[in-house]
Amino acid sequence: MNDAAPGLLDRLSLNQQTVRQWSLPELADGCARAGVRGVGLWRAPVREYGVAAAARLLRDAGLRVTSLCRGGFLTAPDPAGRAAALDDNRAAVDEAAALGTDTLVLVAGGLPPGSRDLTGARERVAEALAVLGPYAGQRGVRLALEPLHPMYAADRCVVSTLAQALDLAERFPAGQVGVVVDTYHLWWDDTVGTQIARAGGTGGAGSRIAAFQLADWITPLPEGALLGRGQLGDGAVDLRWFRERVEAAGYRGPVEVEIFHPALWARDGADVLAEVVDRFRTHVA
Amino acid sequence: MNDAAPGLLDRLSLNQQTVRQWSLPELADGCARAGVRGVGLWRAPVREYGVAAAARLLRDAGLRVTSLCRGGFLTAPDPAGRAAALDDNRAAVDEAAALGTDTLVLVAGGLPPGSRDLTGARERVAEALAVLGPYAGQRGVRLALEPLHPMYAADRCVVSTLAQALDLAERFPAGQVGVVVDTYHLWWDDTVGTQIARAGGTGGAGSRIAAFQLADWITPLPEGALLGRGQLGDGAVDLRWFRERVEAAGYRGPVEVEIFHPALWARDGADVLAEVVDRFRTHVA
Repeated sequence: MNDAAPGLLDRLSLNQQTVRQWSLPELADGCARAGVRGVGLWRAPVREYGVAAAARLLRDAGLRVTSLCRGGFLTAPDPAGRAAALDDNRAAVDEAAALGTDTLVLVAGGLPPGSRDLTGARERVAEALAVLGPYAGQRGVRLALEPLHPMYAADRCVVSTLAQALDLAERFPAGQVGVVVDTYHLWWDDTVGTQIARAGGTGGAGSRIAAFQLADWITPLPEGALLGRGQLGDGAVDLRWFRERVEAAGYRGPVEVEIFHPALWARDGADVLAEVVDRFRTHVA
Repeated sequence: MNDAAPGLLDRLSLNQQTVRQWSLPELADGCARAGVRGVGLWRAPVREYGVAAAARLLRDAGLRVTSLCRGGFLTAPDPAGRAAALDDNRAAVDEAAALGTDTLVLVAGGLPPGSRDLTGARERVAEALAVLGPYAGQRGVRLALEPLHPMYAADRCVVSTLAQALDLAERFPAGQVGVVVDTYHLWWDDTVGTQIARAGGTGGAGSRIAAFQLADWITPLPEGALLGRGQLGDGAVDLRWFRERVEAAGYRGPVEVEIFHPALWARDGADVLAEVVDRFRTHVA
């Protein structure tokens, strides 16, 4: 039915938060068994396991690390807070490099307590990118600025649209700062197709699309709005449309499934992964 | 300190959902005692009390009805569903006219069950506006299309930004279709200042700004994300910035406070209203 499907399945990557119930060895083993070739990692479980040990484990299982989540939180206005954030982000770059991934996802950070200055917070993100971009570039890592859904603008991420993320990224070389296209955060935006094309640029090294992540949008939102992402196909997002748009923009990189939902974490990890692969075939490929 | 303040307080309107604990007579009495001159109403409590009786009650109390919430929910794809929605919206227009308000707030509606076609849903809203606009215009009522926060795009409102709302409204005469500027829904958008200026046009009869509503953004969001709006000054929104922007765009109409929060409903209504007036002086005027 779809000539792109076999190649696309090879590009499927499982973000470890989708199967939070799995340890890193379980993740490596489970993905290898399922024929999934890539994984997206998070810093906390990797550091707990040991960065070098995690890199070896995944390499030995034949898995590629497609991204590391996450750096960022760059909006602190005080010098000490800013210095601490930059230090932490440099450490994140080093961890990404050690894991062999070229993509460090950055979540900008929210408004500082008591502040209503979105513009100022966004400018501080730009200032931090100017420092971190070269540091990352020298280590073969690209900063992947992720616009988060506007419902997180106050407390998590002052970058809310792909247009905003590109406005920031384009101030820097494409090899240093890219963007994440995540369906969960961007699906509602009637300008997102235009912005994906803008992100692709003329393709190749000039593209800003550093990562492509999938989750579906389901309602009602849970308290706190963090852990309510839907399994592929369960919600409102036209996932295939997004896949076609990023491909039309020249993107040929990993397609990472990143779903946060306690109902998935309560199940057997292998079952969840099998369902992800099945849904990916039906709704994405 | 602020020359605009006295005039602005005269323009303060209390949306009845802010004090849901009040009956309509309590609302009329409470606003009159507090010196508040306008109220925003909702259809369900008005119909329960009786439309004509409500109109008389508020008129006798010297109160102006600044808006009626709400019509809309215009995205049903089936003929029967569309016909029912149009009928219901005509009834809402009639109720608005009977209450003496020129502003009927419309919430577009979400995706139909199982649909992922945002573009199609938005087009059905436009088709309905083409029918309802003239009907409303003939009765001295303007349809005020309200962009809701993107977190409601799936289940409540497929119009998520002021730019989108204006794209729709501008297909119709300004006297028939305007937009609502509600700080709770729009505060995160870095293009909202530009879009408010666009909405104002050259001012006067050509302005699209049919209503200006205030609530603050607080976190964490409650389950369902509906009833977590913040009292003025408690959250992330620069309310004064918004007020200045709509005034710069030529808007001189009511400034309506519409806060949905169970903590406000659990208190004495007069206390809540006194707090609203106090916060309005501090954070808006």
